[in-house]
Amino acid sequence: MDRLTLDDIEALCLGATLLGTGGGGDPYIAKLMTHQAIEDHGEVEVIDATDLPEDALVLTTAIIGAPTVILEKIPAGTEFVAGIRALAAYLGKEPAAIMSIEVGGLNTLLPVAAAAEMGLPVVNADSMRRAFPQIEMTTFTLAGLPAGPLSIADEKGNQCVFETTTNQIAETLARTAVIQLGLANAISCYPLTAGQVAEHAIQGSLTYCTEVGRMLERVKAGEDGAWEAFLDRSESVHVFSGKVVDLDRRTTDGFARSTIILEHLDDLARTMRIEVQNENLIAFEDGEAIVTVPNLICLLDSDTFDPITTETLAYGNRVLVIAMPCAPEWHQDGMLDLVGPRAFGYDVDYVEMPR
Amino acid sequence: MDRLTLDDIEALCLGATLLGTGGGGDPYIAKLMTHQAIEDHGEVEVIDATDLPEDALVLTTAIIGAPTVILEKIPAGTEFVAGIRALAAYLGKEPAAIMSIEVGGLNTLLPVAAAAEMGLPVVNADSMRRAFPQIEMTTFTLAGLPAGPLSIADEKGNQCVFETTTNQIAETLARTAVIQLGLANAISCYPLTAGQVAEHAIQGSLTYCTEVGRMLERVKAGEDGAWEAFLDRSESVHVFSGKVVDLDRRTTDGFARSTIILEHLDDLARTMRIEVQNENLIAFEDGEAIVTVPNLICLLDSDTFDPITTETLAYGNRVLVIAMPCAPEWHQDGMLDLVGPRAFGYDVDYVEMPR
Repeated sequence: MDRLTLDDIEALCLGATLLGTGGGGDPYIAKLMTHQAIEDHGEVEVIDATDLPEDALVLTTAIIGAPTVILEKIPAGTEFVAGIRALAAYLGKEPAAIMSIEVGGLNTLLPVAAAAEMGLPVVNADSMRRAFPQIEMTTFTLAGLPAGPLSIADEKGNQCVFETTTNQIAETLARTAVIQLGLANAISCYPLTAGQVAEHAIQGSLTYCTEVGRMLERVKAGEDGAWEAFLDRSESVHVFSGKVVDLDRRTTDGFARSTIILEHLDDLARTMRIEVQNENLIAFEDGEAIVTVPNLICLLDSDTFDPITTETLAYGNRVLVIAMPCAPEWHQDGMLDLVGPRAFGYDVDYVEMPR
Repeated sequence: MDRLTLDDIEALCLGATLLGTGGGGDPYIAKLMTHQAIEDHGEVEVIDATDLPEDALVLTTAIIGAPTVILEKIPAGTEFVAGIRALAAYLGKEPAAIMSIEVGGLNTLLPVAAAAEMGLPVVNADSMRRAFPQIEMTTFTLAGLPAGPLSIADEKGNQCVFETTTNQIAETLARTAVIQLGLANAISCYPLTAGQVAEHAIQGSLTYCTEVGRMLERVKAGEDGAWEAFLDRSESVHVFSGKVVDLDRRTTDGFARSTIILEHLDDLARTMRIEVQNENLIAFEDGEAIVTVPNLICLLDSDTFDPITTETLAYGNRVLVIAMPCAPEWHQDGMLDLVGPRAFGYDVDYVEMPR
C-alpha cells in the first residue's frame, strides 16, 4: 500500500465501520471529507514509521465526543488541521507525517483527510486497531508514552492545549473540555517521534482495515464462500443471530451509553445483552459474558452484511453478532487493567475468544 | 509607592482581605508566601504601566477555585510561576512585568510573590479592585480584550492552555479544568501589552489597597476618629450591625455559595440576608436589596474590626456590614450586564450606593 486512492477509501471506510465495533462514529461523513480532500489536494502517500528519520515528529488527529452527537453535529472540517497546527506551535516543531490513533470508525479516515490537506504522508499504524471510548486506551499508554501535550479544537476557533502528568488526567481534562465545546471536537494527542511509533504502535493497521473491508465488500456482493473467507481471514467467530427487542440509550458524562437486548432468530429461549460505552464492550448470552473487551463485538445487518453502529441501530433490526480478536499487540502486561471489562467498571472477567 | 517592603505587605494584606468582600480567599497564606519570596529574592519594584515600553508583555497570576477549598488545600507555590512560564512559552515572549487581575483576597499578594521569584516588577494596577468569582468579570472584558490565551497549572505539573473566542468560554473551560484539578489552581490570563494595561486597567489599585489597609490598621489600634476617617476615605457606608443567626454553605459548580442571615444587634425586628458566590453579592434588608454588586459588601468583626471572609464566618459572630463603592473605572457601558446582580442569576436591580 503506497498511496490511498479514492477506490481504497471505499474499502477502508467499510473496514473502519466494522472495527468501530458499534461506535467510533459512522465514517460516512469522514469518507466525504476524505474524498473532497483527495480531489482537492491529491492522493495521500502511505508510509511505515521506519521510512521516516527516527526523530521525525508524527502528529495525530481524531474526533472526540459522543457518536450520537457527532451524527448530528457534523465536523466543519477546519478543526482537525487547526488542532494539529496548535499542537505543532506549542511543541515548536512541524510534523513529518500524520497518523490515526484509532483505526476504527471515522477516526480512521479523518487523519487521511488532514494529511491530504497538509500535503503530508500518513503512517500505516495506529494505537488501537479498533475503536475505544477513552484516549488513554492505547498501546502507547501500555508503553508508558504520554498522551500529552495534546490539543482540543472546535470549529469556532476555541483551542486547548493540555500537558498532563498521567494519561488518565489527560482523558479527564480533554473530556470535560469537550463537554463544554459541544461533544464533537478535534483532538491531537500522543505527539511521538517516528522511532517511538515504530516501536510501540500497531503496525499496518490501515492495510488490515482496508483488507477486511475488501473481504466484506465481497460478502456484500454475494460471492460464494466470501463469508467463510472473511471470518477466516479476520479470525472472527459468528456467535449469535438475533433481533433487537430492547434498546436503552443515554448520553452521560460525555459518552453515549446503551444496553442492547437481542432475541435469537431461531431459538427464542436464547437472548443476548450487549453493554455499550460508545463501543460494544461486553456481550452476555443468557447472563454469561461470552465476548469482552478488548476483543471486538461487531453487529452486521443480517441481510446486507453492513456493519451497524449503535446510534443507527433500531428496534426490530435483525443482526449477526461476530467476535473479532483484538490486535495481537494488545496482549502484553497491563492490557486488562487498561482495556479489560473492569477498566469500564464492569465486575466481569475477561474471556478468551470463543471458538 | 516604589517598592513593596515587608512592612507594606501587612497593610496590603489587611486591605486585600477587606476588598475580598467575603471571598477572594484569606490572604494569610499568600502573605507568608510573599514574605518568604521577598526574603529570598529581595523587595519588589512597583511600577506604573506607563513606565514600560508600550509593547512590553504584562502577565498575570492568580489562584482560581473555591475559597473553601483553598483554605484547606494550601498552594504548593510552584504552580504560579509554572503557569506564567507555560503561557509565556505558548506566546513565545517573555513578560516584562507581573500584574494582579484581582486586587482583593489572596490574588492581591500572589503576583507579588511570583514577581519577587522571577525578579520582575509588579504593575500598580488590576482589573477588578475587589474580588469577583469569575474570570471574565474584569474591566478588560468591558474593553473587549480577550482573557486568553490563558494557562491553568496545578502543583503536580499538569498544565492547560486555552485560547478562546469569548471570555465566557474562557471562564467555562478554565472552571471545568479546575474542578478536575482539585479546585485550587494557578491561572495566568489576560496577557496584555503595557499599552493595553495603561488604557484599560484600574490604575493604582495596589496603592489604594495598601492605603485602605493602613487606615484599617489605625481603626484596629483604636485611634481616635480612625473609623470615621476610614469610612470617609473609602467612601464607605456602615449599613448594618448584626449577629449571624443562620449560615447555609454549599460548594456547587466549582463555587462556594452561601446565604448569611444577620439579626440586628439593637433592633431585633431588622434582619439582613447576604447572598454569596465566593464573594458577597447582594445584601437585602427585610427583603429589599440595599447593596448590590459591583459595589462591595464587607463584613468586619464588631470588636476587632478584622474583615471576615465567608469561610471563617460562624454562627453567633457579631459583625459590622459596610458598603464600599466599586472602582470608578467600572462605571462604563456594559457594567451591569457583566457584573450586575443579573449577571449572577438574581432577578434584582442594581441599587446605587446607600447614603
